[in-house]
Amino acid sequence: MSIREIPDIVVGRLPVYLRALTRMAQDGQLITSSKELGERLGISSAQIRKDLSHFGEFGKQGTGYQILYLVEQLQRILHTEAEWQVALVGVGDLGRALANYNGFANRGFRITAVFDNDPAKVGTTIAGMPVLDSSQIVDEIRARGLRIVMLAVPAGRAQEIANRLVEAGVRAILNYAPINLTVPKEVQVQYIDPVIHLQRMTFYVT
Amino acid sequence: MSIREIPDIVVGRLPVYLRALTRMAQDGQLITSSKELGERLGISSAQIRKDLSHFGEFGKQGTGYQILYLVEQLQRILHTEAEWQVALVGVGDLGRALANYNGFANRGFRITAVFDNDPAKVGTTIAGMPVLDSSQIVDEIRARGLRIVMLAVPAGRAQEIANRLVEAGVRAILNYAPINLTVPKEVQVQYIDPVIHLQRMTFYVT
Repeated sequence: MSIREIPDIVVGRLPVYLRALTRMAQDGQLITSSKELGERLGISSAQIRKDLSHFGEFGKQGTGYQILYLVEQLQRILHTEAEWQVALVGVGDLGRALANYNGFANRGFRITAVFDNDPAKVGTTIAGMPVLDSSQIVDEIRARGLRIVMLAVPAGRAQEIANRLVEAGVRAILNYAPINLTVPKEVQVQYIDPVIHLQRMTFYVT
Repeated sequence: MSIREIPDIVVGRLPVYLRALTRMAQDGQLITSSKELGERLGISSAQIRKDLSHFGEFGKQGTGYQILYLVEQLQRILHTEAEWQVALVGVGDLGRALANYNGFANRGFRITAVFDNDPAKVGTTIAGMPVLDSSQIVDEIRARGLRIVMLAVPAGRAQEIANRLVEAGVRAILNYAPINLTVPKEVQVQYIDPVIHLQRMTFYVT
């Protein structure tokens, strides 16, 4: 089945399955079932089986899934078997936390370039990396062949930086700035804004 | 229409509409249309009209939406007209960034209590607040009547803390730990894990 035929909502659940399965594997578990996985995730077992069926046969009725095999297959499907080098733009409080976060490396990503436009930060070192000048961003990202960027700049600067990232050939932007970006449709954007999540919950809290 | 009849996917889009409308208002704009809002967000105008129609009539055909009125209505629907006091558990790099983030206050939330279990941090001050001992979390959250918590602790500690938050009467948890939580169904949980978003994008990047 081609990428275009897989619903994006299904794609969005695969990393959640991968995370839970990886944790099971770390706990020494060898086999699981769609029922057990579903109970852990609050997703129906039928949904999990249907989601995975888009990509092939990963388990047998009655015997469950070999966890390590399914982890490998999901990594392959999500293109995270090898490690992606990622750029980080903006090293305020959040950017620093991301640069120092140790949860990327064993899940397919490593921040290898950091940028900021503050002359007081450019040339200093964060998490062992020199902070590069944002004015060099197009050249640096092209030279390094980076395709994925985390954007942790103020909302007012995010679109302008995004335009330059697109120019540099970036294909995926994880945007922490609380603003929607306009990019060509071949560029993926995902958003992280804690207030969006908080407001989604307060709807239900009275 | 009762809360239970509104699809959660619709609820999830309302904060995104609110964010974009608030930005338009800040830019001095008075009126918008579902078409303009949709173009800004990459959502169809029909979808926006249908989503809003769950909650009432907010605009007239041909004259568009009064932005300030719609902002007020969305704030009312999402229960963010008043400010929620929020607890933060875990003041590592990410927790510190959240405590110092200035993007909560004008969107309905304010962190007013911070907790950590590290004796070296307890009693120090972060963003003007004393770091409280996590061992006091149930009593402190009850005494302050807090209903919303941001959880920024390591994955291995998240479920245990979540259990205590539920015991303390918390109704909504924004979980930054990369692990699924098991909580009673009346407790809302939202997840922020950058790797989940990155992997969702690398699926499309070849």
